[in-house]
Amino acid sequence: LAVSRAFPRAKRYGYSHRAETREAALAAGVVDAVFDRVEEAAGQGGLVVLASPIGTFEELFLKMRDSLQPGTVVTDVGSTKVLPTRWAIKHLPKQVGFLGSHPMAGSEQRGVDFARADLFEKANCILTPTAKTKPRLIQFLEGFWTELGMHVSKMTPAQHDKVLARISHLPHILAAALVNSSELKQMLLCGKGFLDTTRLASGPENVWRDILMANAESIDESIARFIKELTNFQVALRQGDEDAVCRMLAEAREKRNQLVEMKLQRKELPA
Amino acid sequence: LAVSRAFPRAKRYGYSHRAETREAALAAGVVDAVFDRVEEAAGQGGLVVLASPIGTFEELFLKMRDSLQPGTVVTDVGSTKVLPTRWAIKHLPKQVGFLGSHPMAGSEQRGVDFARADLFEKANCILTPTAKTKPRLIQFLEGFWTELGMHVSKMTPAQHDKVLARISHLPHILAAALVNSSELKQMLLCGKGFLDTTRLASGPENVWRDILMANAESIDESIARFIKELTNFQVALRQGDEDAVCRMLAEAREKRNQLVEMKLQRKELPA
Repeated sequence: LAVSRAFPRAKRYGYSHRAETREAALAAGVVDAVFDRVEEAAGQGGLVVLASPIGTFEELFLKMRDSLQPGTVVTDVGSTKVLPTRWAIKHLPKQVGFLGSHPMAGSEQRGVDFARADLFEKANCILTPTAKTKPRLIQFLEGFWTELGMHVSKMTPAQHDKVLARISHLPHILAAALVNSSELKQMLLCGKGFLDTTRLASGPENVWRDILMANAESIDESIARFIKELTNFQVALRQGDEDAVCRMLAEAREKRNQLVEMKLQRKELPA
Repeated sequence: LAVSRAFPRAKRYGYSHRAETREAALAAGVVDAVFDRVEEAAGQGGLVVLASPIGTFEELFLKMRDSLQPGTVVTDVGSTKVLPTRWAIKHLPKQVGFLGSHPMAGSEQRGVDFARADLFEKANCILTPTAKTKPRLIQFLEGFWTELGMHVSKMTPAQHDKVLARISHLPHILAAALVNSSELKQMLLCGKGFLDTTRLASGPENVWRDILMANAESIDESIARFIKELTNFQVALRQGDEDAVCRMLAEAREKRNQLVEMKLQRKELPA
């Protein structure tokens, strides 16, 4: 929907292995035509965007490789970038350009029913070029996401995965672990705070399994870092050290408020 | 504001030790009159509601005890109930009835500026009677909070503190620890998920320090429980056990979706 709004003359072709999804996408006007084989959809040229769970990418690259037209640009919107980039370099032909994208927008809901033309507006998109990525390719995708309304930044796939472990993958695990350590009967008494803190846990498990497995090492490091902070609270509470507790709470409040302030300035949040 | 809407003829008297707060409360129409000494405000009779940080309660009870009229009902809206109840029993005269309340509504924002008449609608309120609390007192406060639009439930102060450690105090610590284990520059790239997961961390540290210190034991237990769940994720990721990761994510998603479904049925969430 966002592509259609930013590029009204673009033809949008869709592939899904599920007939139901293909029909829903056509009915919702999310694509102009659908294919039941990925090689046909990807063979139409232009820009190919992979938006399925990361664990499906390698197979999709293998299936589409022989039907890609020279000059086609391939990207993906996966939440980790090291593995997709490695697979693309390994499997895609040289006359095709690959560059990973991570448009950081969406919600815990999934599927065509939740499609929105304004999903990408004012949100961040990270491009992950390697030392060998051609400048023209970077320029092309930078222009594409910018036209959809995004703030584009760049880093290597490895840097991306390290940062995302902290600001996205760890928070997802925390939300899930919090729900799993709670009882439904007790949770029923909760306020909005608990629902916000656990919202991410409602995301689809197959998508998130793939993300977590693909970034296990960086996530391991961020879990360790987090447990250290949590243990600081635990120790201070056991010792009855109210100054330490207050200092940690104040640090968090000030840091988060600074974050919100900067997001407001960049218009990434509604005023 | 909610009291004024539910009980239009009630007189609302306010006390704050800060002149600025007293003036703002009068200007916002949140009270009909203000006092700069708590004994004067509490001495007006009727229902006395303590709504300051928990750490101030004992001193407030001591200050007001001699001016309370017989038959006055005293409650508090603190987020822990064992200590306030203990202090009330210790310090308040026998001809005054005390029963703790925990209206679970509000946000990370504080002060008269964020007052809303509809804050309590469809939200949960927990009353914490002991074996000695008079039935008429329970009835009175149950009626009071119900008139403000709340769903009232009852449990002992000890049960309350145990449940709240899990559904409120632990989530607050997790939000703060997540912010403290992140770098501002990296957080700037985050999406809405991170902001939701960390929202609680923007709460006022003096209020939350008092809550955490007053419930340290139950929180310690809930942190241990949480670290166990988090470690399950850590181990599964290290072992590359994608089935275990998927199972834990699915458990969390199903449990949270069930929670949301039940909250929708009870109209505690907008449809």
